[in-house]
Amino acid sequence: MEGIRVLDKDISFMKRALNLAAKARGMTSPNPMVGAVIVKGGKIVAEDYHKKAGEPHAEALAILNAADRARGSDLYVTLEPCCHLDKRTPPCTNAIINAGIKRVFIAMKDPNPKVSGKGIDELKRHKIEVVCGVLEDKAKKLNEAYVKYITTKTPFVILKTAMTFDGKIATPEGQSKWITGEAARKIVHRMRGSVDAILSAVGTVKADNPEFTVRTGQWIRNPRRIVIDPNLEIPLDYKIFNTPPETIIITRKQVIGNGQKAIEEKRKALIDRGIKIIEYDGDRVDLKLLMKRLGEIGIASLMIEGGSSLNAYALQDGIVDKVVFFIAPKIIGGKDSIPAIGGKTFRRLEDAFQIYNMNVKKVGQDLMMEGYLKSS
Amino acid sequence: MEGIRVLDKDISFMKRALNLAAKARGMTSPNPMVGAVIVKGGKIVAEDYHKKAGEPHAEALAILNAADRARGSDLYVTLEPCCHLDKRTPPCTNAIINAGIKRVFIAMKDPNPKVSGKGIDELKRHKIEVVCGVLEDKAKKLNEAYVKYITTKTPFVILKTAMTFDGKIATPEGQSKWITGEAARKIVHRMRGSVDAILSAVGTVKADNPEFTVRTGQWIRNPRRIVIDPNLEIPLDYKIFNTPPETIIITRKQVIGNGQKAIEEKRKALIDRGIKIIEYDGDRVDLKLLMKRLGEIGIASLMIEGGSSLNAYALQDGIVDKVVFFIAPKIIGGKDSIPAIGGKTFRRLEDAFQIYNMNVKKVGQDLMMEGYLKSS
Repeated sequence: MEGIRVLDKDISFMKRALNLAAKARGMTSPNPMVGAVIVKGGKIVAEDYHKKAGEPHAEALAILNAADRARGSDLYVTLEPCCHLDKRTPPCTNAIINAGIKRVFIAMKDPNPKVSGKGIDELKRHKIEVVCGVLEDKAKKLNEAYVKYITTKTPFVILKTAMTFDGKIATPEGQSKWITGEAARKIVHRMRGSVDAILSAVGTVKADNPEFTVRTGQWIRNPRRIVIDPNLEIPLDYKIFNTPPETIIITRKQVIGNGQKAIEEKRKALIDRGIKIIEYDGDRVDLKLLMKRLGEIGIASLMIEGGSSLNAYALQDGIVDKVVFFIAPKIIGGKDSIPAIGGKTFRRLEDAFQIYNMNVKKVGQDLMMEGYLKSS
Repeated sequence: MEGIRVLDKDISFMKRALNLAAKARGMTSPNPMVGAVIVKGGKIVAEDYHKKAGEPHAEALAILNAADRARGSDLYVTLEPCCHLDKRTPPCTNAIINAGIKRVFIAMKDPNPKVSGKGIDELKRHKIEVVCGVLEDKAKKLNEAYVKYITTKTPFVILKTAMTFDGKIATPEGQSKWITGEAARKIVHRMRGSVDAILSAVGTVKADNPEFTVRTGQWIRNPRRIVIDPNLEIPLDYKIFNTPPETIIITRKQVIGNGQKAIEEKRKALIDRGIKIIEYDGDRVDLKLLMKRLGEIGIASLMIEGGSSLNAYALQDGIVDKVVFFIAPKIIGGKDSIPAIGGKTFRRLEDAFQIYNMNVKKVGQDLMMEGYLKSS
């Protein structure tokens, strides 16, 4: 590691920086969460984090707070400092160099192709000692959505579902309130607050009339709502059309004669209400294409809160990065209750979707299992 | 606690006794597992455990080992010593009294109505100090099967299944080998070794031709196999009919004319092979009645290794005490893949089976979730 030995104290300062970064969860998109800590003589002399896209970066803020004490200090920052100029904020490498910082500990390289090592090079060129990779895994996990979006321009997709011990998300009649307990539902609200959008579909919206908003004091930003409604069946008085924030309807391009007039009227009524409409050709929306489109309008992360079919299509179309399954201590049974994942069935076990880095914890009376669709 | 303060050292001696008891897992049925430790001057002077029904009890063995050193000592025993005479072994209370033991620490009362406090009373009558309830929860869990059987005369029933992340136990074509990994399958073998019988049904046996035996070096006793086969469809060359131990077939009582002749022949062939047959009246076997019957022939614990329907019937008939679900990090999806629990569906979430004391741990690449059908 380039001559510097990473000591326990370095790890703990980086941990502090990561905790600071996480304070802005849900607020920085499409930017990453970043925290910075400045240490001199073994003591923290300044610290800060990036609060929101468009506002100053963590390093710049911490250097500002440190003032003269930055000279000869160590900087711990959770992401490689930026060095490019095509942003609303000046490059952080300059600020670090000008402040006279001696050593920089970085958790992870910036995957942004405009930075990706160039920030580190710039610092080294100015004789600053740099070590990169301190608590790298934690940093990558913290900014997993940013890493995906900045490298692919498509959103990081979380498939979330709440099911019984035996994999059911609802009774045959669609009753799903509530499978999981309060603690799990609270986490779902927090998850909503940390993504740019929720993706759902007509079935779930018609059954539950959800708002998909964040009902916990801790987060103040609601995700956008993206709802697939091929035939514009969702009634106008439903909550998604009558509460902020923005709702985008994904609908089938109508062909003439296909009950088209009523749908055309509904379409106009929605547009009048300020609802954005995205159309697709063909039988069902290609979710891969949709993700590309959503990436273009700045959606860097998205959580799917749908039903059996949307869950299945999302997996089939290969858009899912992470699954989060809440499991309730109930058995509902039966061949006609609704499975978590519907749709097409694999005929061979070898073809099943593999989940990597599975993790589980207890959440109130329920379990929360998470994992990734690709190995990391 | 009757004047004796339970100290940390007492807890750790009892832990030792519980560990000794557990050494005989699967070997003592219908007796409980029991361990005993004799302590004098703060040191263990003798210890032992009950090895097998018909062989000496743990306390008796430990006292024998201790010889003279038992006088004035403390005894730690995981179950209340027996005081009744209608057994193959003499009552342990006598041995304790005669050995001159001063104090007796007991983990739990014997739920056997023939003992249930009488052993403790007997000791107290002889001026021995007794404290009961040391690590009681652990002791009860260790002997959960014994507790159920001795109080109800029906076996303790474990419903075991291996399923995907989305609650499926097989592809639509019935492929289920292997959903879970080696570590999970190893645990299943150990579980087989610790029960008196496996309960399965024709579908599973025809699909997998299983042996249901313990293929791990640690246990030497194979459980009996109880297989529900209403029309005696399982071929005679299948493993359950050609490997030890005993197989019992549960079959529908045939009514005249109902393809009866072929079935009658098969029945004879089975009996010739030493297969036991239990018949039931009606459409499907009443599992509650079957458990009663199995209890009568000395089956104190049983693990269900069946399919979607047997799992559902077992829950419906209310015979399940404990569920153990292994969950693999795979998603198989689809409406026609086989759910863990089939059968009748609850129309209301409120009616779902509730699972208590749910626990989860990682087992290799899989999860092992367990819980109980009744609150404890």
